[in-house]
Amino acid sequence: MRIDVLTLFPRMFDGPLTESILGKAIEKKLLEVKVTNFRDFSDSKHKNVDDYPYGGGAGMLLKVQPIDESLQAIEKETPDTKKRVILLDPAGKKFDQKMAEEFSEEEHLVFICGHYEGYDERIRTYVTDEVSLGDYVLTGGELGAMVMIDATVRLLPDVLGNDESAITDSHSTGLLEHPQYTRPAKYKGMEVPEVVRNGNHKLIAEWQLKESLRRTYQRRPEMLEALEMTPEMIKLLDEVKNEEGAK
Amino acid sequence: MRIDVLTLFPRMFDGPLTESILGKAIEKKLLEVKVTNFRDFSDSKHKNVDDYPYGGGAGMLLKVQPIDESLQAIEKETPDTKKRVILLDPAGKKFDQKMAEEFSEEEHLVFICGHYEGYDERIRTYVTDEVSLGDYVLTGGELGAMVMIDATVRLLPDVLGNDESAITDSHSTGLLEHPQYTRPAKYKGMEVPEVVRNGNHKLIAEWQLKESLRRTYQRRPEMLEALEMTPEMIKLLDEVKNEEGAK
Repeated sequence: MRIDVLTLFPRMFDGPLTESILGKAIEKKLLEVKVTNFRDFSDSKHKNVDDYPYGGGAGMLLKVQPIDESLQAIEKETPDTKKRVILLDPAGKKFDQKMAEEFSEEEHLVFICGHYEGYDERIRTYVTDEVSLGDYVLTGGELGAMVMIDATVRLLPDVLGNDESAITDSHSTGLLEHPQYTRPAKYKGMEVPEVVRNGNHKLIAEWQLKESLRRTYQRRPEMLEALEMTPEMIKLLDEVKNEEGAK
Repeated sequence: MRIDVLTLFPRMFDGPLTESILGKAIEKKLLEVKVTNFRDFSDSKHKNVDDYPYGGGAGMLLKVQPIDESLQAIEKETPDTKKRVILLDPAGKKFDQKMAEEFSEEEHLVFICGHYEGYDERIRTYVTDEVSLGDYVLTGGELGAMVMIDATVRLLPDVLGNDESAITDSHSTGLLEHPQYTRPAKYKGMEVPEVVRNGNHKLIAEWQLKESLRRTYQRRPEMLEALEMTPEMIKLLDEVKNEEGAK
């Protein structure tokens, strides 16, 4: 996979791209990432990339020209790839695991990161997706791009080791993770529950399923509605509801 | 404000902490950030921080001891601050703008970033908040912590310049931003709408409000239900609905 990032703060990507899973994926040649400062493509004398909005209003807007020409340069460098061009924007569609899965099937992703300001509306004509990270305001699109890249790249074949990829995670099983424990069995008076230490795998599996249901019921009850439940899950969830109601 | 981050990948924070708004806030002494590798606090010979889960299962869990002792070291260094200790966890409460506002009122935030694995359940006894960035899976808590720090720090007094802080943003007005344009008036055949160029501020304001309503109606209709609308907004939204219905 190839990923391009257009940003005014290329150095923000230094750490995230060399450490951790991304660094490893790049090392293994599973991924190529190029971060471009789109200021370099400004046609103005002082390399301006923003300007005042028509009609007044606070803040500056990113101009269309430097983005257009940065995208042209990417196209020229990689004429044969099918590109998905993603604009980081608070008004965009909310990023989720399904979108990460979609992105992970693509050949070439291009992220456009704004900073502080809004975008000249015409920039949107160059993009295939407008995406928001969540219901909060960030100073720029860079961290959003990093999050989307991380969520996407970990889904690529061979990026995660077996140990890591085998982990069941809350957003793919439909339930939150049950409590988990590792050694020591006792730490400053806090003990690991007897059941997970006794080696009876049937009892452990039942306890884990029940505690997953409990945590989901307590924290994200709406997730339960979307779930197809087995008779065992229905029984355990009833027990949980009784126990929680009795508290 | 003081922020501590506990992580196994301290270098991931290099770029984000020196560039952009965070770097500026640190330079202006509005913010002090300390990133600690909690591996340094492991009491095991090989500085292990994870171990197999009781009861079996894939993946490794973060042990309670290194986290406990890292937190003790922070407490020793800053005995007088009131701390909010935030665990980055997919099963946590979803981060939003309200939480960013809450965090921005605090004196001292401590972020605990896991990586790949889950947490030994007993780590949760040390935290005040368990927070998730959104409905997607990341390889670690580091990017989540960066996002939360960015969303929080930009709300601190004097961090943003006047120009930046004056920007109305979608998540505080309750509507998505209307289309905005900057120079040139014409770029490769794409023209800025006449109305925002004509200088009639009453018409411009009405156009902006209407287009904000249109974008919200098209993309995030559920946001409209939460909104208290003026008679003008009701009228404009009706027009939008008619226009969109007629398409």
